[in-house]
Amino acid sequence: MNPGRFIAFEGGEGMGKSTQARLLVEHLERTGEKAVLTREPGGTPGAEAIRNLLLHPPGEGWAARAEALLFAAARSDHVERLIRPAIARGEWVISDRFIDSSRAYQGIAGGLGDEMILALHDHGSGGLRPDLTIVLVASDAEVSERLQLRDGGTADAIGGRDDAYHAQVNAAFRKFAGEETGRFALVEGDGAIDDVHRKVLAAVQPLLESRQ
Amino acid sequence: MNPGRFIAFEGGEGMGKSTQARLLVEHLERTGEKAVLTREPGGTPGAEAIRNLLLHPPGEGWAARAEALLFAAARSDHVERLIRPAIARGEWVISDRFIDSSRAYQGIAGGLGDEMILALHDHGSGGLRPDLTIVLVASDAEVSERLQLRDGGTADAIGGRDDAYHAQVNAAFRKFAGEETGRFALVEGDGAIDDVHRKVLAAVQPLLESRQ
Repeated sequence: MNPGRFIAFEGGEGMGKSTQARLLVEHLERTGEKAVLTREPGGTPGAEAIRNLLLHPPGEGWAARAEALLFAAARSDHVERLIRPAIARGEWVISDRFIDSSRAYQGIAGGLGDEMILALHDHGSGGLRPDLTIVLVASDAEVSERLQLRDGGTADAIGGRDDAYHAQVNAAFRKFAGEETGRFALVEGDGAIDDVHRKVLAAVQPLLESRQ
Repeated sequence: MNPGRFIAFEGGEGMGKSTQARLLVEHLERTGEKAVLTREPGGTPGAEAIRNLLLHPPGEGWAARAEALLFAAARSDHVERLIRPAIARGEWVISDRFIDSSRAYQGIAGGLGDEMILALHDHGSGGLRPDLTIVLVASDAEVSERLQLRDGGTADAIGGRDDAYHAQVNAAFRKFAGEETGRFALVEGDGAIDDVHRKVLAAVQPLLESRQ
């Protein structure tokens, strides 16, 4: 059987990743493909329970290393129970965030380093990479403005970190894309939703053609 | 300041580890030492929340790799928030289980291998080892009998695994002790509680003397 394709959306908070992921799944289904919409941290009952611990930490909040291990644990469950089986059945998997979020947030902005995050991913998930990683990008000023509009005083343990942290995250995604141009597509996320969607479809087109 | 000492009790289920850990703490306190009684998985609010996920998994139960990452995450929080600070204050830390449980259960009996478990421990907790690890040992037949007496139909996701699994755990602890004789003491756990306690004190005596 022709295996499915795995696409992750990445980028800072409030960039429209979940909207664009949903629009892409709807597009794929209209073209007759089977597609699973999922997210990280989460996507399986176990990983969603870990998500809840990550976003609402008990006690004084997670230290950086424990947090990185929790993300890796959630991803391990997600990959083994949902992503790999769906790909094996020939389906598309569209995930709102994947390994590059851990690299950007915990590895770079959080200071643990890329090597540790990739090692945990190798141990937990066999180092699985998406076939395509679409990074929705915007200027730091735009990111900061979107965060303020979105939070409305309800920021969680990660989205609520300061502007400098989120600027580092943004820069990290651009760096990863530059280092592995075959796996990444940068898409400007600050246009109208439909315009961004069209750019996403252009980035996905080679994968669609590879399925024919 | 003279740093504290860190002792872990290890062994299969139902061997009396928590009883012996408590008796040791009470003994140390009577001799004027400050001692913290703790356990794994757990010991901090974050690690206790992870313990709850481990023992009562949502969905279909944890796959081996996700489980190992969750143990490493709980241990990371425990080491950073409780164990290292207590040692730095000159206190004794007595823990019911530590890294060698992950090596025996997830690494050997669970089939992930010792190398992966030690790598996760290096990433999460800087590879911290106890000054002394006391393994309470008994024959496989005795272990099987104790498990049945103890469970009474309420076995959790790990204690409830089969006899062959628990025999592998038992053998793994003996193997670790043989490989690192300076850090381990094997104590026969199948005598009267007071007799076992006296053997534990004999094993701890060199560490007590090193504090004078």
